Amino acid sequence: MCELLGMSANVPTDICFSFSGLIKRGGGTGPHRDGWGIAFYQGRGIREFRDPQPGFNSEIAKFIKDFPIKSTVVISHIRQANVGKVSLENTHPYIRELEGRYWCYAHNGQLKDLDRLIGSSDKRFLPVGDTDSEAAFCWLMGVLAKSGEQSLDARQKTIHSCANQLAKLGVFNMLLSDGDRLYVYCSTKLHWITRRAPFGVATLQDDDISVNFGEETTVNDIVTMIATEPLTTNETWVKMQPGELAVFEKGELVVQA
Amino acid sequence: MCELLGMSANVPTDICFSFSGLIKRGGGTGPHRDGWGIAFYQGRGIREFRDPQPGFNSEIAKFIKDFPIKSTVVISHIRQANVGKVSLENTHPYIRELEGRYWCYAHNGQLKDLDRLIGSSDKRFLPVGDTDSEAAFCWLMGVLAKSGEQSLDARQKTIHSCANQLAKLGVFNMLLSDGDRLYVYCSTKLHWITRRAPFGVATLQDDDISVNFGEETTVNDIVTMIATEPLTTNETWVKMQPGELAVFEKGELVVQA
Repeated sequence: MCELLGMSANVPTDICFSFSGLIKRGGGTGPHRDGWGIAFYQGRGIREFRDPQPGFNSEIAKFIKDFPIKSTVVISHIRQANVGKVSLENTHPYIRELEGRYWCYAHNGQLKDLDRLIGSSDKRFLPVGDTDSEAAFCWLMGVLAKSGEQSLDARQKTIHSCANQLAKLGVFNMLLSDGDRLYVYCSTKLHWITRRAPFGVATLQDDDISVNFGEETTVNDIVTMIATEPLTTNETWVKMQPGELAVFEKGELVVQA
Repeated sequence: MCELLGMSANVPTDICFSFSGLIKRGGGTGPHRDGWGIAFYQGRGIREFRDPQPGFNSEIAKFIKDFPIKSTVVISHIRQANVGKVSLENTHPYIRELEGRYWCYAHNGQLKDLDRLIGSSDKRFLPVGDTDSEAAFCWLMGVLAKSGEQSLDARQKTIHSCANQLAKLGVFNMLLSDGDRLYVYCSTKLHWITRRAPFGVATLQDDDISVNFGEETTVNDIVTMIATEPLTTNETWVKMQPGELAVFEKGELVVQA
């Protein structure tokens, strides 16, 4: 199993604090030794860092932890390999362009008989690596491409329908974004929390670190964090239900289906 | 104008030495203040770093300069903006997936009347930013997609034909790779050098640095560097001719057309 971390915010926000917690699980406090990756949207652009090395002793991960990259949507993943060898092309998140936007995706879980689902579908997007996760992403992107440009409402329904079909093949917890919206699908385990004024002090579960968000933020900031397991010990995280799709935009929950 | 840097090698090789020279031109010894980017192929995977900040004082560039990432194909670019604002989505190199491979591209020059060329073409790939460079890349990738899977010989001819058409619209110096081959097209200015045993000492043009490649390499290593202007002062670089396509694979020149 792998761990997911996502963020949606209304102002560019750095993720150093949460990433510190996650990356410790990459072979430090957790068993996820098989690489990690993180993607930051900034405007329409995307910036990504990835490494097939365990996160807890990756030079690049150390750099990210200390260097505050401010972003409005972040998707991160640490990997414990089940399908696909440990290599750069098999590290999440995966990125493809559709309709002039970068779509970014990470998956936690394992899927079986994916070929049957993909078999008859559009092959516009093809996986580069050999994970079930990337194959599922390419199938999903192919469905979106075939649907053509959609309203936000229709698009969310298409994504939910695809995620439901994938979840029938195994465990499918997913983060997906087009840079504006963050689509979060729970098949077994995902938690989220929205932080807004008045901000308090949060203490990381995996590291001896606390942060006073009141000192780091303005009263208008709204920031939602999504994680496989709650990252902090002194806050209440919302546990998602199996089959649930939550959509976040500018830090706010905009759809819960 | 921008500067390009490419590498093709038969064994994973770090590019720290050459990148040190290039990045100094990013607002240090050169006028290219409007961002930079670098992509490293490792196996079928690709790792990229980019920044809309000037290279010479970018924290990420400093990290890359000191942290040896070994790769067989590298494409790098520093930008002096002419078309398109200074932003993350407008930094080269650009990447798209085709046929289950990541294709990576960087361009030096300016193109006019690109819309006329693109107008009637396949819109499978769309630019995310607003540079002429990315629009040209998306058009080229659309032509490759429409051609279907091709022999290496046919593909090289398709790429050469596309590059010639783009060069008619202005200045079009290009680096393009599918991870195996590095396609280098010269419209006005590009130089390359192949280094192999016996390796000597090279001295950077832009920095007070020399490196003895004999100490860094084995006798079997073959490494070609491609750059807008020669990066070293004591070696003989091959100057490319306008309209010329050179293709490198595993460090060797395999096609010159």
